[in-house]
Amino acid sequence: MPRTKTAFLFLAALTALSCHTPITSATAQTTDDSQPATSNVRGGQYPRVHADLSVTFQFKAPTAQRVQLVPGGGVESGLGSKTFDMTKGSDGVWTVTTPPAVPGFHYYWFLVDGVQVNDPASETYFGYGRPTSAVEVPEKGADYYEAKEVPHGDVRIRSYFSKTTGKWRRAYIYTPPEYDTKTRTRYPALYLQHGAGEDERGWTNHGRMNFIMDNLIATGKAKPMLVVMDCGYATKAGASIGAGQRNFMAQIGGFEEVVLNDLIPMIDSSYRTLANRKTRAMAGLSMGGFQTLQIALGHLDTFAYIGAFSSPPGDGFDPARAYNGVFSDPAAFNDKVKLLWLGAGTGEKGFFISARVMHEALEKAGIKNVFYESTDTAHEWQTWRRDLYDFAPRLFRD
Amino acid sequence: MPRTKTAFLFLAALTALSCHTPITSATAQTTDDSQPATSNVRGGQYPRVHADLSVTFQFKAPTAQRVQLVPGGGVESGLGSKTFDMTKGSDGVWTVTTPPAVPGFHYYWFLVDGVQVNDPASETYFGYGRPTSAVEVPEKGADYYEAKEVPHGDVRIRSYFSKTTGKWRRAYIYTPPEYDTKTRTRYPALYLQHGAGEDERGWTNHGRMNFIMDNLIATGKAKPMLVVMDCGYATKAGASIGAGQRNFMAQIGGFEEVVLNDLIPMIDSSYRTLANRKTRAMAGLSMGGFQTLQIALGHLDTFAYIGAFSSPPGDGFDPARAYNGVFSDPAAFNDKVKLLWLGAGTGEKGFFISARVMHEALEKAGIKNVFYESTDTAHEWQTWRRDLYDFAPRLFRD
Repeated sequence: MPRTKTAFLFLAALTALSCHTPITSATAQTTDDSQPATSNVRGGQYPRVHADLSVTFQFKAPTAQRVQLVPGGGVESGLGSKTFDMTKGSDGVWTVTTPPAVPGFHYYWFLVDGVQVNDPASETYFGYGRPTSAVEVPEKGADYYEAKEVPHGDVRIRSYFSKTTGKWRRAYIYTPPEYDTKTRTRYPALYLQHGAGEDERGWTNHGRMNFIMDNLIATGKAKPMLVVMDCGYATKAGASIGAGQRNFMAQIGGFEEVVLNDLIPMIDSSYRTLANRKTRAMAGLSMGGFQTLQIALGHLDTFAYIGAFSSPPGDGFDPARAYNGVFSDPAAFNDKVKLLWLGAGTGEKGFFISARVMHEALEKAGIKNVFYESTDTAHEWQTWRRDLYDFAPRLFRD
Repeated sequence: MPRTKTAFLFLAALTALSCHTPITSATAQTTDDSQPATSNVRGGQYPRVHADLSVTFQFKAPTAQRVQLVPGGGVESGLGSKTFDMTKGSDGVWTVTTPPAVPGFHYYWFLVDGVQVNDPASETYFGYGRPTSAVEVPEKGADYYEAKEVPHGDVRIRSYFSKTTGKWRRAYIYTPPEYDTKTRTRYPALYLQHGAGEDERGWTNHGRMNFIMDNLIATGKAKPMLVVMDCGYATKAGASIGAGQRNFMAQIGGFEEVVLNDLIPMIDSSYRTLANRKTRAMAGLSMGGFQTLQIALGHLDTFAYIGAFSSPPGDGFDPARAYNGVFSDPAAFNDKVKLLWLGAGTGEKGFFISARVMHEALEKAGIKNVFYESTDTAHEWQTWRRDLYDFAPRLFRD
């Protein structure tokens, strides 16, 4: 160990590093049945999840007049869609315990006298276009998205240059466990997109895609495959979005070209893929499903497997005319498309009803498709984890 | 595009996703010479870096009484070590412009009526044991850490189980660009550690290690190698740290065993490494350098190349006795250790003086070592980027 003057300096620096960290978790201990959420930073004691899945949150703000907990979700949240008022303790720590939550991954933040603040005890997860706090509420009996003692694939962070945007981009790419040893084998690829306000990290950091795939592959339920997760935003070179432009839908104009002209060629030249339509799938959640339907249904020469997670096309949906008439010849469509998969959670009522309307309209029109129902989950990641767990085993079976 | 009722629902969700995001950047436009920092979130307009390297910060808090900008750094920061008072505009947006900054990567946060808050327009970077805002100030003429049109290696996110801790851990592993094509070639490995309060993501997200290595390898300055970045904290299975334990030094007790018994065996069995001491290096910054000196000097059968970045051993340093007498036979040490590399920035005065004292004491004792001086940079990432850029080319030359 370092000693004397320099040692003091060294340790002073370390102390400085730590003492700037008013982790609220350090301020209280509990003796009840609760556990720190696995989504917390290392050592973060709050939020804590109780046995009944209620969740206790804390935030230290001795001089604040009002502190509130705001669950994310936009439409519905498994934490409840209302704002919770927190109660101040004598130690300046504000606390609230929610009712029992729906299992899953729930975004949240605090409002401290009206200012939106993340929880310093939570890791941040990129959502709403910014780093955002989230709490993981475990689902009893569901371990398909946990790290298990099975072979693990790597998730690779890949930088590539896009001619479409004129910029460097970053993709996350899951390679299956055997990829590094079976060096003469080529693999199919699933292109898997995040939702609005999220980015290429979402399926790994929020969705635990890698553990879901590891577990499916280890049990033989899914074929070994690459999973390519790109950033869904793309502004064409020369175009610009206003500084005030916060509508994510306005930031995706170049994405189709990025996928077709930059991303797929980069993947097929850099990784050992089976580079043809029957070994290429695309899926996405919410905005990413919207993009999937646009891109994949528009390019059946490129994709044969298609998944839309919580992404209905709108209830004006007319199979005869939608997507440039791709459904107008059911026999041809059914022959060409190996899987058209739709899903939604029963807790996201508008999305659910609309996805089912699409499913039924397609059925009626003679278009084969799968409709998956996620019980009780809302427009949140537990729905999309379940979606992937049902969708991935159906891929590349022809 | 979706239409009618469902369409409205779908777009309403998107709008909800975006409208919860009070990115301060959206509130103002500038017409001066400044640019948004590259460390910002996508589309984040502030902080902005001016041509003279002064930086303008903004934070929206209409009802706050006092908002301050706090540069991180613990000891010294390139933004200045003082706290800056921000000025409130009529739009409720608080602003401050710093004096010209030292180039590099600077942590910061805001104090809003005393509550520590991250900047919603900054990405978060794990430092101080929590997600933390940071601003990248470019160094004129220095492009060695930029993404260039050269072959790029992947940074792999790897999950592995540690028997030492009884838990799953996560490592980041850089594989050189040729790794996937030269499938019969084995590579040396550099084990590279972060500092106190940071984690395995630091060298990639803060340090741009991957671009530094890509550029060094592309120009033939460094040999192709793996770079293994683990999380420096490890509590042995069965041991516990108190919830209030915020001293990072108390959380590293199991790390040496993790490195020797879990991490290196996992790397050597999972990747095509040259698994012997002459092809294995260890280096780290600050706490990570402290760990490197302890672990590598204690296991010269495992490591032949050693780097301590801003990590002096203390000025009571006595070469005859330090590290269990490893320096007591200079001829034997110089024969066995291929590189002992020490470095510090002139802007981190205590660390610098102490590292130089160590260097000089070793020289006097007949121990070969390299001392590297980073001009003007403090206990921050620009120092450590420069360190890696000097250190990596010296590796695996024997």
